[in-house]
Amino acid sequence: MTIGEMNIPKRTIMTPGPVEVHPRVLRALSSPVLGQFDPAFTDMMNDVMALLRQIFRTTNKWAFPINGTSRAGLEAVLASLIKPGDRVLIPIFGRFGYLLAEICERYRADVYTMECPWGDVFEPKEIISEIKRTKPEIVAVVHGETSTGCIQPLEEIGRACRELDVLCVVDAVATIGGTDVNTDEWCLDAVVGGTQKCLSVPSGMAPITFNSRVEKRINERKKVERGIATREDIELETGRLPISSNYFDLGMLMDYWSPRRLNHHTEATSMLYGLREGARVVLEEGLSERFSRHRLHEAALIKGIKAMGLELFTEDQKKLPTVTCVKVPDRVDADLVRKMMLDDFGVEIASSFGPLAGKIWRIGTMGYSCRKENVLFTLAALEAVLIRTGASVSPGNALQAALDFYHE
Amino acid sequence: MTIGEMNIPKRTIMTPGPVEVHPRVLRALSSPVLGQFDPAFTDMMNDVMALLRQIFRTTNKWAFPINGTSRAGLEAVLASLIKPGDRVLIPIFGRFGYLLAEICERYRADVYTMECPWGDVFEPKEIISEIKRTKPEIVAVVHGETSTGCIQPLEEIGRACRELDVLCVVDAVATIGGTDVNTDEWCLDAVVGGTQKCLSVPSGMAPITFNSRVEKRINERKKVERGIATREDIELETGRLPISSNYFDLGMLMDYWSPRRLNHHTEATSMLYGLREGARVVLEEGLSERFSRHRLHEAALIKGIKAMGLELFTEDQKKLPTVTCVKVPDRVDADLVRKMMLDDFGVEIASSFGPLAGKIWRIGTMGYSCRKENVLFTLAALEAVLIRTGASVSPGNALQAALDFYHE
Repeated sequence: MTIGEMNIPKRTIMTPGPVEVHPRVLRALSSPVLGQFDPAFTDMMNDVMALLRQIFRTTNKWAFPINGTSRAGLEAVLASLIKPGDRVLIPIFGRFGYLLAEICERYRADVYTMECPWGDVFEPKEIISEIKRTKPEIVAVVHGETSTGCIQPLEEIGRACRELDVLCVVDAVATIGGTDVNTDEWCLDAVVGGTQKCLSVPSGMAPITFNSRVEKRINERKKVERGIATREDIELETGRLPISSNYFDLGMLMDYWSPRRLNHHTEATSMLYGLREGARVVLEEGLSERFSRHRLHEAALIKGIKAMGLELFTEDQKKLPTVTCVKVPDRVDADLVRKMMLDDFGVEIASSFGPLAGKIWRIGTMGYSCRKENVLFTLAALEAVLIRTGASVSPGNALQAALDFYHE
Repeated sequence: MTIGEMNIPKRTIMTPGPVEVHPRVLRALSSPVLGQFDPAFTDMMNDVMALLRQIFRTTNKWAFPINGTSRAGLEAVLASLIKPGDRVLIPIFGRFGYLLAEICERYRADVYTMECPWGDVFEPKEIISEIKRTKPEIVAVVHGETSTGCIQPLEEIGRACRELDVLCVVDAVATIGGTDVNTDEWCLDAVVGGTQKCLSVPSGMAPITFNSRVEKRINERKKVERGIATREDIELETGRLPISSNYFDLGMLMDYWSPRRLNHHTEATSMLYGLREGARVVLEEGLSERFSRHRLHEAALIKGIKAMGLELFTEDQKKLPTVTCVKVPDRVDADLVRKMMLDDFGVEIASSFGPLAGKIWRIGTMGYSCRKENVLFTLAALEAVLIRTGASVSPGNALQAALDFYHE
């Protein structure tokens, strides 16, 4: 069988990720690679650390990408922190809360979960009272839950964890670069981001940051690989229970991302180029300006959706500004609509998971995809397809409402 | 702090990886991304599976990349196969044998190692007799050990494993695409490759293949993530001990790489483009032709090295054709020579690890880096730098010997 040239169709990607990649990032990806210990490359690794610190709004020493997709970042942090039997409290308000619980269980934590209906979030005081009751070593919580389009306020939770000497680990995959993630101000101990959403870099890296509280705990289990360890390394680690994963061992990764530059993996060169350029684009725009842009296009999209006669699944304070969930009208085939939008317009929106599969559409306004023409084209495509499937829609109103808003 | 534009210096990369990336692969990386469930993208996932089967020389159903660097592929296979207490036999003949042992220990295997001096490999019959003695569930073995430049013959070992009903897991990171890796013919049950060496794709993906023997064992612990599992899934998995890692759970990855397309991670889009194009380049050249090209430039390099008056660390049958290890002459500072080669010529060669650090240089002839002009320029740079550091070298002979060989 012969596999031919790539022929990539033109798409407007309005899912909650992966979203369109910034053209400057695509260009950076095509640069020739450098050796991993070439000073020109290790300088770039340091650049990326400095850029990520700004994006995470932290003065943490440690901020670097895990070479894997977003959940690799989550697993690296949790695998490195959890000792078997540790108590971890996980508030679950959608699919990705279950993911956190599942990762912690696999690393043999004693997992306590609390759940609220999909589409809701927790009052911080509910979580804080559960922390006091269960006395966990770690609280692991999702910030932006893309499966339901909800955002969990974290400031009070982070501060309570600090006061109670509990580690607070946050999944900020859907929010980093799209809305406030204030690592230091909110007292978050470890934060995991994703590249393929609001940073508009391709999937395949997971930027993380963690503070000295986390570092201290990890270094209690520090290990250097036998084939490269010195005698001193081996003496130091005698009797220690190592972290259960080699690939996700943040102790080894700190040795690689510090002046010691002890080889662990071979850093994913091209992806690092992309992340460096993507982070520069984010910071050139400015974090606050970028968050405002996300809010602007989210608002325009909502105006259009409502003018069409459709309803939102989530609104108000708990709504994640980077994902808009729309209720599928009765008797409309959610997946058929998505297929027609893709086939006829090249516009991609998402369905959801579990209890919400087929019941909502999820429309992302993330990163480079979050642009006026994308919002307008998505509204036009959705309206036209709904009309063709026989749904009751007020024709023409969506675009006029969005344009009115943009031209206000 | 402002981080400026990338300025990537021009390099000739002659290390054992990462090596220069094929220009067609670099171009592919800069293509716009697609959504992960866009049929245009899932078709490309299937293309990559078909291409990888050819490269691994297998009819296995399963051949796909792990989204991580090479050791992510090793950890995915071992984490998914090992149940705590399983016996794993690991023949160690360099750094990467230790890595296999360390991964298996972390996943709580009962690890049996056998060691030979760095620079040697095992007689297959030694390994086979150790298999008979220790009766392991799994043998994990490195094919090409880049730390010493040695290659372990696998055919007899693979066949013995099959006869004895032991699973044979192979680290072919340094050999895939550079020399014979005959998965089916040699009865290898799981093989892990790397992208950044002889495939000349950037680091960040690890192509793997495994057969139905491995699949069966993994499916005994199959699990579907809670947030997306059906009632049937949950009933089936009751009472099972899950694989210790979520990210490396090959059971979930099979669901993602099959028509069920059950979301696990978001496939690293751009890297998949790169792997697809890199695999096409490999197969267009032809595997046998490509292996001959590697042998040709290796031979030219060796002619030059010897004509300069330097000695090889490894020769003959056990020499890995994609890495040439050169003894550092007495009183020569190995790292200073490498630094001068990089600073003045932009040529990068490698040092080694552990007992060989400072004692050998390692020169790769891998993938797109394995070209006549690269071999000649490396010889020229090495000779000139050695002369400047006062080493005793016969000037001019290296290039003439290599050119004589090329023009034979």
